[in-house]
Amino acid sequence: MPFDRLIEKIKEKNNPTVAGLDPKLDFIPDYIKAKAYNKYGKTLEGAAEALFLFNKGLIDALYDIVPAAKPQSAYYEMYGWQGMRTLAKTIAYAKEKGMFVITDAKRNDIGTTMQAYSTAHIGFTDIEGEKAEAFGADALTVNGYLGTDGIKPLVEICRENDKGIFVLVKTSNPSSGELQDRNLDNGLTVYRAMGDMCEKWGQEAMGKTGYSAVGAVVGATYPEQLAELRKALPHTFFLVPGYGAQGGGAKDVAPAFDKNGIGAIINSSRGIMCAWKKEGCEPTEYAQAARMEAIRMRDDIVSNIG
Amino acid sequence: MPFDRLIEKIKEKNNPTVAGLDPKLDFIPDYIKAKAYNKYGKTLEGAAEALFLFNKGLIDALYDIVPAAKPQSAYYEMYGWQGMRTLAKTIAYAKEKGMFVITDAKRNDIGTTMQAYSTAHIGFTDIEGEKAEAFGADALTVNGYLGTDGIKPLVEICRENDKGIFVLVKTSNPSSGELQDRNLDNGLTVYRAMGDMCEKWGQEAMGKTGYSAVGAVVGATYPEQLAELRKALPHTFFLVPGYGAQGGGAKDVAPAFDKNGIGAIINSSRGIMCAWKKEGCEPTEYAQAARMEAIRMRDDIVSNIG
Repeated sequence: MPFDRLIEKIKEKNNPTVAGLDPKLDFIPDYIKAKAYNKYGKTLEGAAEALFLFNKGLIDALYDIVPAAKPQSAYYEMYGWQGMRTLAKTIAYAKEKGMFVITDAKRNDIGTTMQAYSTAHIGFTDIEGEKAEAFGADALTVNGYLGTDGIKPLVEICRENDKGIFVLVKTSNPSSGELQDRNLDNGLTVYRAMGDMCEKWGQEAMGKTGYSAVGAVVGATYPEQLAELRKALPHTFFLVPGYGAQGGGAKDVAPAFDKNGIGAIINSSRGIMCAWKKEGCEPTEYAQAARMEAIRMRDDIVSNIG
Repeated sequence: MPFDRLIEKIKEKNNPTVAGLDPKLDFIPDYIKAKAYNKYGKTLEGAAEALFLFNKGLIDALYDIVPAAKPQSAYYEMYGWQGMRTLAKTIAYAKEKGMFVITDAKRNDIGTTMQAYSTAHIGFTDIEGEKAEAFGADALTVNGYLGTDGIKPLVEICRENDKGIFVLVKTSNPSSGELQDRNLDNGLTVYRAMGDMCEKWGQEAMGKTGYSAVGAVVGATYPEQLAELRKALPHTFFLVPGYGAQGGGAKDVAPAFDKNGIGAIINSSRGIMCAWKKEGCEPTEYAQAARMEAIRMRDDIVSNIG
């Protein structure tokens, strides 16, 4: 099962973190952009090429110490199909380097449409008997607002292909409570109801480590809810955004881990991608700066677990 | 405002329906697929080309009688970036023919990430001062589970660019009630809470017809909830899936319309795309069969309004 594989990679590197690859043109050093624009102009294709060169440098600097990468689809979609080609190339490159790749796309729909999304991002596309991999990540973030019809097609594809999903449960943003914290008439919150559904959906795809193929997104910015959910959802692996730029610290994310120090992976995107700007490094040192920040983050988080 | 534009097109054609463009290879006549595979092989590119040829034929047969088209992103994503190129080409072609295009992608995220999705699908991408349109639809379906942080960035882009969004409120699938029908402690349902948020979000982008740029997705398969929501959300334009293949009939969708017979658009995807199979037509008549079905659907729905 997928999170068994991920947990193994985390243990090998003693690093329960994931590098978010959310490249914006503003984050990319000028010398990289110049190279791309010289070739393709200031076009969607030129921007998409700059994104790929930037990501490649980051992956090269991170893959031996960081077990996973998480590209955020929105930052590729905004450069059109050319950007989506960069997403596919980024995923392929990170996997080639041994990283576990989570596509953060928060997809959601029902029935055959959800099957199509699963096929796109964590499955294989059948073209008259020929198999092709469209995007080919190891896991996909999804939104469970539509209920079981929206999740079942995924769970089947996860089982077949050793892939995983992360369902949004309690998100890291300030207004996440508007709906998610509302109390249901049974006294439980909406996010807790969603979490309980994750446990149920995961029963059919349980891993050796006790974590199923159905994980949850739970934000670092709400440490109390994180602790509550860790306790309530013993088979649900957590993807935890909100560390660093969004305000979550190592103490805030500690409750995401179980008593064995596993069960979660902590994301940092801007912290790693923009380290060179924050540290005032030369643009050519952007990847090295990202590596230093990834090490700092690893040590910060590991020293606070358990 | 976008739904003023859409309502105008609906009135011109006396047809409150939208043609869903969810092309699966199974729906596409062999002669079209052969043409595409001969050129590009049984590859993602070949499949993507077949999808475009199929869509183009449908649009040519529909644009003078159907005011809007709704491509479902999943069926393009499953063919990789090549499929996404077909999505972009399909949107451009339908707009060129005067159709209002709704990209059904149910995107959701927060802050700058949601901005990136808005830019991708209903905005303009800035590349060092050069503007490019990535996908360029008139409206986008979105999921509001993350609350206001996930919707605000969209509303701003809607206002700037005369575009719209449809927030999932009560979806048409059998398990939609698992979360959406749960009662909150104030006695209202989750879907109603989401609907009320749509009214609130829409206040800042109100159209001349009284409908804001923030619409809602409400399924035809739950006519009572449709009637409840029409009454409760007087400024929220409805996109109604579930007619036809999913089981909703013209009487079921009638409550989606206000007392003036406006305020909603009804989707049919499989019914239109697969009409040639259902009617046992020659494959070369697929577009003509789609047109006949679109006319039948229009007359069925219009005769049941008001």
